Amino acid sequence: MPELVTFGETPLRLSPPGKERLETADSMALDADGTESNAAVTAQLLGVDSTWVSKLPDSPLGRRIVAELESHGLETDITWADSTEYRQGLVFHESGHPPRESMRWHDRKGSATATAKPGDLPMDRIQTADIAFTGLSTPALSRDAAETTKAMLRAAHGSGVTTAIDIDYQAGLADPAFLKDVLLELFEHLEVLVANEERIRTVLDRSGKPRELANSVAAEYDLKTVVITRSKRGAVALQDTPGTNVIHERETVETEAVDDAGQHGAFSGGFLARLADDGDLSAALSYGVAAATLARTVPGPLLTAERSEVDRIADDVIQASR
Amino acid sequence: MPELVTFGETPLRLSPPGKERLETADSMALDADGTESNAAVTAQLLGVDSTWVSKLPDSPLGRRIVAELESHGLETDITWADSTEYRQGLVFHESGHPPRESMRWHDRKGSATATAKPGDLPMDRIQTADIAFTGLSTPALSRDAAETTKAMLRAAHGSGVTTAIDIDYQAGLADPAFLKDVLLELFEHLEVLVANEERIRTVLDRSGKPRELANSVAAEYDLKTVVITRSKRGAVALQDTPGTNVIHERETVETEAVDDAGQHGAFSGGFLARLADDGDLSAALSYGVAAATLARTVPGPLLTAERSEVDRIADDVIQASR
Amino acid sequence: MPELVTFGETPLRLSPPGKERLETADSMALDADGTESNAAVTAQLLGVDSTWVSKLPDSPLGRRIVAELESHGLETDITWADSTEYRQGLVFHESGHPPRESMRWHDRKGSATATAKPGDLPMDRIQTADIAFTGLSTPALSRDAAETTKAMLRAAHGSGVTTAIDIDYQAGLADPAFLKDVLLELFEHLEVLVANEERIRTVLDRSGKPRELANSVAAEYDLKTVVITRSKRGAVALQDTPGTNVIHERETVETEAVDDAGQHGAFSGGFLARLADDGDLSAALSYGVAAATLARTVPGPLLTAERSEVDRIADDVIQASR
Amino acid sequence: MPELVTFGETPLRLSPPGKERLETADSMALDADGTESNAAVTAQLLGVDSTWVSKLPDSPLGRRIVAELESHGLETDITWADSTEYRQGLVFHESGHPPRESMRWHDRKGSATATAKPGDLPMDRIQTADIAFTGLSTPALSRDAAETTKAMLRAAHGSGVTTAIDIDYQAGLADPAFLKDVLLELFEHLEVLVANEERIRTVLDRSGKPRELANSVAAEYDLKTVVITRSKRGAVALQDTPGTNVIHERETVETEAVDDAGQHGAFSGGFLARLADDGDLSAALSYGVAAATLARTVPGPLLTAERSEVDRIADDVIQASR
Amino acid sequence: MPELVTFGETPLRLSPPGKERLETADSMALDADGTESNAAVTAQLLGVDSTWVSKLPDSPLGRRIVAELESHGLETDITWADSTEYRQGLVFHESGHPPRESMRWHDRKGSATATAKPGDLPMDRIQTADIAFTGLSTPALSRDAAETTKAMLRAAHGSGVTTAIDIDYQAGLADPAFLKDVLLELFEHLEVLVANEERIRTVLDRSGKPRELANSVAAEYDLKTVVITRSKRGAVALQDTPGTNVIHERETVETEAVDDAGQHGAFSGGFLARLADDGDLSAALSYGVAAATLARTVPGPLLTAERSEVDRIADDVIQASR
Amino acid sequence: MPELVTFGETPLRLSPPGKERLETADSMALDADGTESNAAVTAQLLGVDSTWVSKLPDSPLGRRIVAELESHGLETDITWADSTEYRQGLVFHESGHPPRESMRWHDRKGSATATAKPGDLPMDRIQTADIAFTGLSTPALSRDAAETTKAMLRAAHGSGVTTAIDIDYQAGLADPAFLKDVLLELFEHLEVLVANEERIRTVLDRSGKPRELANSVAAEYDLKTVVITRSKRGAVALQDTPGTNVIHERETVETEAVDDAGQHGAFSGGFLARLADDGDLSAALSYGVAAATLARTVPGPLLTAERSEVDRIADDVIQASR
Repeated sequence: MPELVTFGETPLRLSPPGKERLETADSMALDADGTESNAAVTAQLLGVDSTWVSKLPDSPLGRRIVAELESHGLETDITWADSTEYRQGLVFHESGHPPRESMRWHDRKGSATATAKPGDLPMDRIQTADIAFTGLSTPALSRDAAETTKAMLRAAHGSGVTTAIDIDYQAGLADPAFLKDVLLELFEHLEVLVANEERIRTVLDRSGKPRELANSVAAEYDLKTVVITRSKRGAVALQDTPGTNVIHERETVETEAVDDAGQHGAFSGGFLARLADDGDLSAALSYGVAAATLARTVPGPLLTAERSEVDRIADDVIQASR
Repeated sequence: MPELVTFGETPLRLSPPGKERLETADSMALDADGTESNAAVTAQLLGVDSTWVSKLPDSPLGRRIVAELESHGLETDITWADSTEYRQGLVFHESGHPPRESMRWHDRKGSATATAKPGDLPMDRIQTADIAFTGLSTPALSRDAAETTKAMLRAAHGSGVTTAIDIDYQAGLADPAFLKDVLLELFEHLEVLVANEERIRTVLDRSGKPRELANSVAAEYDLKTVVITRSKRGAVALQDTPGTNVIHERETVETEAVDDAGQHGAFSGGFLARLADDGDLSAALSYGVAAATLARTVPGPLLTAERSEVDRIADDVIQASR
Repeated sequence: MPELVTFGETPLRLSPPGKERLETADSMALDADGTESNAAVTAQLLGVDSTWVSKLPDSPLGRRIVAELESHGLETDITWADSTEYRQGLVFHESGHPPRESMRWHDRKGSATATAKPGDLPMDRIQTADIAFTGLSTPALSRDAAETTKAMLRAAHGSGVTTAIDIDYQAGLADPAFLKDVLLELFEHLEVLVANEERIRTVLDRSGKPRELANSVAAEYDLKTVVITRSKRGAVALQDTPGTNVIHERETVETEAVDDAGQHGAFSGGFLARLADDGDLSAALSYGVAAATLARTVPGPLLTAERSEVDRIADDVIQASR
Repeated sequence: MPELVTFGETPLRLSPPGKERLETADSMALDADGTESNAAVTAQLLGVDSTWVSKLPDSPLGRRIVAELESHGLETDITWADSTEYRQGLVFHESGHPPRESMRWHDRKGSATATAKPGDLPMDRIQTADIAFTGLSTPALSRDAAETTKAMLRAAHGSGVTTAIDIDYQAGLADPAFLKDVLLELFEHLEVLVANEERIRTVLDRSGKPRELANSVAAEYDLKTVVITRSKRGAVALQDTPGTNVIHERETVETEAVDDAGQHGAFSGGFLARLADDGDLSAALSYGVAAATLARTVPGPLLTAERSEVDRIADDVIQASR
Repeated sequence: MPELVTFGETPLRLSPPGKERLETADSMALDADGTESNAAVTAQLLGVDSTWVSKLPDSPLGRRIVAELESHGLETDITWADSTEYRQGLVFHESGHPPRESMRWHDRKGSATATAKPGDLPMDRIQTADIAFTGLSTPALSRDAAETTKAMLRAAHGSGVTTAIDIDYQAGLADPAFLKDVLLELFEHLEVLVANEERIRTVLDRSGKPRELANSVAAEYDLKTVVITRSKRGAVALQDTPGTNVIHERETVETEAVDDAGQHGAFSGGFLARLADDGDLSAALSYGVAAATLARTVPGPLLTAERSEVDRIADDVIQASR
Repeated sequence: MPELVTFGETPLRLSPPGKERLETADSMALDADGTESNAAVTAQLLGVDSTWVSKLPDSPLGRRIVAELESHGLETDITWADSTEYRQGLVFHESGHPPRESMRWHDRKGSATATAKPGDLPMDRIQTADIAFTGLSTPALSRDAAETTKAMLRAAHGSGVTTAIDIDYQAGLADPAFLKDVLLELFEHLEVLVANEERIRTVLDRSGKPRELANSVAAEYDLKTVVITRSKRGAVALQDTPGTNVIHERETVETEAVDDAGQHGAFSGGFLARLADDGDLSAALSYGVAAATLARTVPGPLLTAERSEVDRIADDVIQASR
């Protein structure tokens, strides 16, 4: 069984019921909502031995995050921080309804994860995994978090572990200039990049169609694999092999979302899990799309599914793309 | 006022809220959900004097089934079984969201209805009704249930009561071979068959378009009326009259379902209620479609409506099919 | 900051959860739901200093209406009536699902507002506002309410305040003949008329396309501005200026409603707020459509939004109509 | 099986969740809550064949009342009134918490039951029952309701049916002077009186200890049986037999209430059901206390219980009173 | 009508339903929960013209605080801060059940109120009020908040406004040494001190019985009025008048709490409102106890009540203390 | 860290909200509720490395049980059974309110655990633990379950593992005669017995006061430790040492239960966890009482707490018993 280690912040998501607005809400639902733990949960259900690594406050809210993730069968490896000093990161999420947009307010300043130091991570565990994964939102939290993420990718990369990142940038989380600087620092240790087309354009300040984007980003930053997701318009994956580049495209299965949170983490988890299996990029892309699709049909950010459901939709995705 | 008697199991449906998955649910809603009682409730609201006949455990769950049905104005005639010996049949239902499918897990082994003997039924009541109805899911429960259903249809048929069945087969409920055997035994006493096109093909192992299906099934099993429902593609009804067969077709009113459970029972109830009125097959088909359509717009398996609402939609169905 | 005063009844809306039917509901949600207070809340969030004037029973239900409206930043000016004599008006609302229609049952007989006398209104406040607004449902309540509404419009009109009405007629609320009589009496003091095309046809017993309707109604009743809303087909506004009439049309932004209640009040509020700004009829029409669209995306009759959200959608409406 | 017929209004109770106040409530639970139907439901579960007779609007709210009562196995015999003319009676109920008191706001003016005429009642059914029962709150609704109640008791009494009333007076429902007049008119046809000690003192303007009250009321108004309930202090029953009066007393089983609504109806139902059995006043008093006690442990006004539970608590009551 | 101005932070309280633990909660209820706004809401319902002054982030959460308070009829005067810089203060609250204790986790670092500067306050409004009030938890937030609170009390005191503080200290909110320093700085401008006996002992590091405490604190810090609350053991008020000190004592009305949050703010609001009326310390003490008692019977921190309810309980308190 | 392995069935508990009755419930909450997993969860939070061993159907319901337990940090070792053959055991639980009793209906026939064979258990894991624990309800399920439980205790006992059982018998679960037979078979391999005084009397058909019971049971069945719990009257523990028996007694901390389910499992978990620490029987008894007490204050059968909370209450228990 391949092994995946992911590192990142999992904020506690607070969201009003249904389509209610935050401003008039009387209650909020709670969910663990982090790209890296979402990806790990999805990979776990696809048969990958997945561990989520993080730093959390030793408080009921911090323990709640771990409890929810472990209920999905995920293993966790946590550095517990003094809860009188460090906060649990929060994100307030309001579900939109067209033309009203979904909105997120990040309340993550001073969170425990933002203060993580390289010494807080179980580097031996990371160096013996098959894949190490993080999202850009984690190094975006603070200078400390950026250094720690870099140390983690460097350690993994140096040990022959496949390194991957998801550009899970969200408006209001960090200054775009800082984000670009951080990403450029990380590229040295990265092999796989997963990114929504709009986010990659924003962060790297580029234009171009998805195929061009994938090609130019892979070339400039010497990445082995670049995956561009396009929301309703499918996804593109490029493998940079000596001599020639291979490109795969997939359509999206059309579906109105029950809850659109967490789908990008599910994409990365599905993609990496299948990639870890036998390195088949085409199949991996289908599993990324399938996992993201299924994640949209389930309330909450985390994907709950049987493996056979992902298999079936991945097959449909492959059929539809022929 | 015409009289309808229906016999069958009404399991208690347990379903998580909204689109939640069973595996992560913290609570479940409860509903009485049986084809035969659903049909009776619909027929009752259309002015037919309807009675539901069954065997239930004398427990809070069994009594809850009766309470919910009686709140819809239905009369019930129950044989109460010792609740330390016999269970209340259960069905766990998870509402899907495309491309994720709705799922049902039947937990009906050892249910009180599965042990019903012919002597448990009020045969005099059945023999003085105008129509006697059951669903195939009931005789599918057990050999006992199959014998009891046969005895009920035989008694009704022998007394000149119109006999009808709905092929409400669901995956996981019973072995298809057993289902076919049971159905073949019942045909001797049956006049009206209502079936979804896919289910009739599965159970009787046939192919063909709906009109062909209706014709060949009516001919081979000597049925007077065969109704084939086609989900979003409408419904077809065939009346086998000496010399010639009359066929009617109806379009479905397009509507996304609030809750798709119970619609087939509502179809049978609407169809039989109108048929009992004056035997007009064309009108009956419209009422079947209208009742099923309306049932899809109401949460829970049972149809709650005013008669005028069914009338209005049946008119629309007739208009749309001209 | 321009000032708006609205007068009318705000019944307490009681509605079952989701798509449940009243007949089987075990609980109901509560919302303040009156055209005049809805319009005032919308105008308030668009920067108009808005006051809602009414008569309510001095009971928990009456105070609850005021509490909900004041939580939206609205000012209120209430005549409190003896709660042992006068009721809080109620309306039971059932949300439909096509082809099942939404339904409303008015339970407003003997309500405090229905007994309002001219002396109950703060006429000085009304006479110093920029716009005075009411809905036809209020004078439709009773002869007293009709007299009081007329007195309010007369006082406003006589003091140079712009007077406006929304034909918010609903089936079951009042006799159509009485409605027409009441409306005809009010026309003398009215400048702006907002009406759904079907309602204006019903109440004034007219036919014709929206542009013709607007022209003929404006001409016959000497109105300065007539706005015809057309549900999914947009809206039309006519300004009757000496020599020539100006007509503007807008498309609707397509959206399935989360809750379709309250959208007409939001339309009037958005329209009047923008009109009060600089008298630009074209912009006002866009803001009416934008506010109504946004109101449909929010649960409950009252619009909760940031001003920037209305601005953005109004821009889209203008773009789409070019 | 003895037969009980009860006549009266069953308002729809609307109550905020838990200990919330009406003034700040966002939702309300719905329950059928009438003394006469409560009594009939309790008598039904104790083996008495019970029918509730009333006049209701033919609206979803009116039908909801019947649906809830029939789900408890009660038979109903309803005169359906035009729902555009007549209202469903409502009562808003707020659950207190000491020292804050529970409160009820009656919104029953113009209700269908308040307009019931003698001709609306199924007199033949009433005249063939064993017991006919009503509460004072029903004739208190209006002059019409008072006349109809009198006609009902007269018809029953004249046919040898035992007639009974519960003084279920509540503040704010009617003028005390009117209540006394109504009650005095009814005494002519009454045999059994059930009353809380404070209410009987208020309505008949009397003082005295329970035993004295029972004696003097029985003597003055020529009643056969007088039962005085004393909330936490138990109950007293007097049987006026020629030559001597028999008096029984019972302690109450101490219990904090889950929901204190409906307990008086349950008392009357339990008392009359046991009385109908064999006329044993002492046993009847125990069953009244037991049913009221149990009703306090169940949410909602209606008692849901197995007969064996009432039997067990009635035994405890008898033991405790020895 | 006397005027009260209160200044302080109102954090948003997030609390799991019922007795659930934070660690396993799936949702949380939201409530505005600040001593100063609680006090103002209570004073408002007792007829004092009350305004709450604060600094909040211009975000949905900040606006939600104001909306909830204004729904209670409170006037607010807010300095709106940039929501990308400043947070809404939060407090997580878990309701205990003996012997498990209620717990609060403050998440208020970096809140908008903590950064309030003297220039953010409407000093003219404060200087023209009758009473100015704050809680110790507000200056405890930060050095800025402490300076601003001092400036507010100095301005009020200098203008002849009665100044009052509630020692609403809670474990985990601030360092006790810092609290004492802050309080000592404020004493110069304070006239009225309200404090729970345990908190005053902790903050001022004193021992002694309530009467002694009140005497010694009043003497040492030159306070005009000192009120010591003692939870279930009642309350003591001392008035330091030239020549002699007057002391009043009150018993508490025993009641299990529905929600014990907010009662201390209600006490201060009730006490100050009555004091503002005619300066009768004895009556004021009764109203403080009554308001706190009533606040315990209502869910949520804010007191919803009719004035007559407070009057009635205050009377009971007076009776019980004679 | 000591290791605990527990084996047993964890049925899914379905319970109506609050004090509602099953018969009228519209929804039910779901909870994992088994003595052995409850004990393991409690021991885990007290620092014991705990594993729960069982056989479950590979269905959403079976996986839900594991998910809930793993969210409490428990390790699980499950034999997954074919879900078309084997059911998930269910228990319906209705919370009483005095004098109405709480009730449980077991629906566990044909459950996966009831078919467990010795080969389904991870015997090596059991043989290397420090303590092996089960409840009597598990072997009571079936002859298969009894054999498997015996095999498990024999294997543990033979390897020097401390073996323990809780007599968690409940009415309606099994025939008392069968229970006694099963228990007698198990005694050969048992060292520690935990039992409620009434249950031990029923199962072993004995009388006597707790101390006598403990003595006679320990002597007759050669048990090393016997713990008798007495609900509100505390608990007694006896250690059978050569020459003399040591007996400890503890008072219970009085508390009304939020949810009384699961407290016995928490007792066993607390008792065994502390016993595993250093064998101090007196301390172990205090921890059993403390864990049970705390479990009663938390909704649901599983104890959620911080270790420090159990420590604090255990201290109180020790103080109270001196």
